[in-house]
Amino acid sequence: MYTYDQLETFSKQVFLKIGCPEEDAEMAAKTLVSADLRGIDSHGVARLSGYVRLWEAGRINPDPNIKIIHETPSTALVDGDAGLGLVIGPKSMGIAISKAKKAGTGWVSVRNSNHFGIAGYHAMKALAEDMIGISMTNASPLVAPTWSKERMLGTNPIAVAIPAGEETPLVADFATTTAANGKLEILQRQNKKAPYGWIQDKEGKPSDDPFELKNGGALLPLGGDREHGSHKGYCLGSIVDIFSAVLSGAGYGPWAPPFVSFLPMPEDMPGKGLGHFFGAMRIDAFQPKEQFKVNMDRWIKRFRNATTVNENQPVLIPGDPERTLEEERKKSGISLLKPVEDDLKGLALKFGLSL
Amino acid sequence: MYTYDQLETFSKQVFLKIGCPEEDAEMAAKTLVSADLRGIDSHGVARLSGYVRLWEAGRINPDPNIKIIHETPSTALVDGDAGLGLVIGPKSMGIAISKAKKAGTGWVSVRNSNHFGIAGYHAMKALAEDMIGISMTNASPLVAPTWSKERMLGTNPIAVAIPAGEETPLVADFATTTAANGKLEILQRQNKKAPYGWIQDKEGKPSDDPFELKNGGALLPLGGDREHGSHKGYCLGSIVDIFSAVLSGAGYGPWAPPFVSFLPMPEDMPGKGLGHFFGAMRIDAFQPKEQFKVNMDRWIKRFRNATTVNENQPVLIPGDPERTLEEERKKSGISLLKPVEDDLKGLALKFGLSL
Repeated sequence: MYTYDQLETFSKQVFLKIGCPEEDAEMAAKTLVSADLRGIDSHGVARLSGYVRLWEAGRINPDPNIKIIHETPSTALVDGDAGLGLVIGPKSMGIAISKAKKAGTGWVSVRNSNHFGIAGYHAMKALAEDMIGISMTNASPLVAPTWSKERMLGTNPIAVAIPAGEETPLVADFATTTAANGKLEILQRQNKKAPYGWIQDKEGKPSDDPFELKNGGALLPLGGDREHGSHKGYCLGSIVDIFSAVLSGAGYGPWAPPFVSFLPMPEDMPGKGLGHFFGAMRIDAFQPKEQFKVNMDRWIKRFRNATTVNENQPVLIPGDPERTLEEERKKSGISLLKPVEDDLKGLALKFGLSL
Repeated sequence: MYTYDQLETFSKQVFLKIGCPEEDAEMAAKTLVSADLRGIDSHGVARLSGYVRLWEAGRINPDPNIKIIHETPSTALVDGDAGLGLVIGPKSMGIAISKAKKAGTGWVSVRNSNHFGIAGYHAMKALAEDMIGISMTNASPLVAPTWSKERMLGTNPIAVAIPAGEETPLVADFATTTAANGKLEILQRQNKKAPYGWIQDKEGKPSDDPFELKNGGALLPLGGDREHGSHKGYCLGSIVDIFSAVLSGAGYGPWAPPFVSFLPMPEDMPGKGLGHFFGAMRIDAFQPKEQFKVNMDRWIKRFRNATTVNENQPVLIPGDPERTLEEERKKSGISLLKPVEDDLKGLALKFGLSL
């Protein structure tokens, strides 16, 4: 069991060792470990050694010159200079927020980045400013569009954070696939089958084998199959890809760079690195924020009290499970799986740090 | 078989008869019949008599004073004065577009409206301006969130239209449920069962009976059940509801007003009418539009040429099926189901018009 502070401090030390400036190392560590706090363990310290390997492969620039290439009162195009998405993300979301202060809303499309951790973390930055926060990113191609055998899209998550008054904020944060890759990894470790509708094999046939991705299979868009609306999940994944990577000039679709350093970079990339898209909308750019908060509280209370199918299973508000885990883990600590702990110990040894 | 012009002219005459000004009647007719052109028959002239009944019930103001209540450089809050959504929609989308011309993007939340036809029509308005268009609306509560027995949300569609160069634009337009209500109506007419994952019965149990909604059942969020990601469809429907109706001050969640005039208005409504949300983003607020179009063309070509599961079933680009139907129907006309034709004949008789 580790405290949040232990994991955050350790991650920061690792980022300093690969050459990040102090401020960036701290920002990257906070972004990364927010995933462990919120229970999205696949995106937290479990990925720390992956970022280090990308740096070793020369694919991450630890001290990037992140800059605005073009802007209008409510928009910016940002080039991340191949830096850590964990740093480019918060900085770009900060640009969206400061645009929104003046223009009502702010929208930032980012190219030349890397994985930015969990989408929800960035969207939630807007909450303290009484803004709605939006964040999305494209990702390595693992997903087959409806009727495709080929992997063309990433799990391309969308997050939206909406402030409330007395109630806790609504935070939606989800992959645009039936199930995120992290869910498959859990089944792999438990040696269990996956529900049909999550994956297809390399011929495009429905499969329940969680190892199928290693054999050329693919994740399926939200909906699973055409009859259950997979074309809608494919639409969502496409929108995220285009807002994040075509609008910014990053590697889109099957040309999105892989997270794992052992896979080669795609050939003939039409743009630079991975892409993200961030938005911030000031509540009072639409109506008085007090009035909005009263209504959001009423919305949340009404949904929380909806008649349930099973009396032991209350209707949840988006973000409830993650917030509950965050509260628990802040108090009781974060337990790591043995392979993740070994991975961190390996990094400690490599860089002369103590975990 | 009717031509587009016949249906558009007839609809315009009906809107004039209920008291719409000339310009509004024409705008409403164009918006309405765009649904018949694009093959979303449930939202076209099939609904004309429904709008008339809402007017008869005093729920539609045919000559509204649509006004901006509050604005910033990139946002506006619009009150539709209980007018036709078919008119409030295009006018509000026009405000979003003119905001985007100056501020880079424009975002409009609308209250006190009624059903606005198909979401895609409004989003597509942005294409001619080299902008990305976004449109969404809340709707009468027919959908049960994950683990809820109660209907709390509408089918809450989202549309996103993205310009391309030589290729046709990408137009995603989809309900945030597994299947839209129109799909159920088709099965009802054909006396066929629905696939599991579309609906639940009044106890919240999975059902394949397309008449279940009339017995207190509900449509299911995209994903269908928890294991297949229904909580993600619930997130999407919630975001649409909040952007459209909480942000604007309309009737949200279970308080969204019904489309059918025989159902009473909800009690204790927290806001006015139905809500919509529109967005327009200038491509060149991010990067030169020529460069974007080259990349969108490459995106579209690459996805269109993805290896298929079945060689007779090519991978489609969002909007392909609707565009194909639009081309066909512009040329060969629009055939109406007998009950829809009878409905229009009834309106012709009522208002002394010829169909």
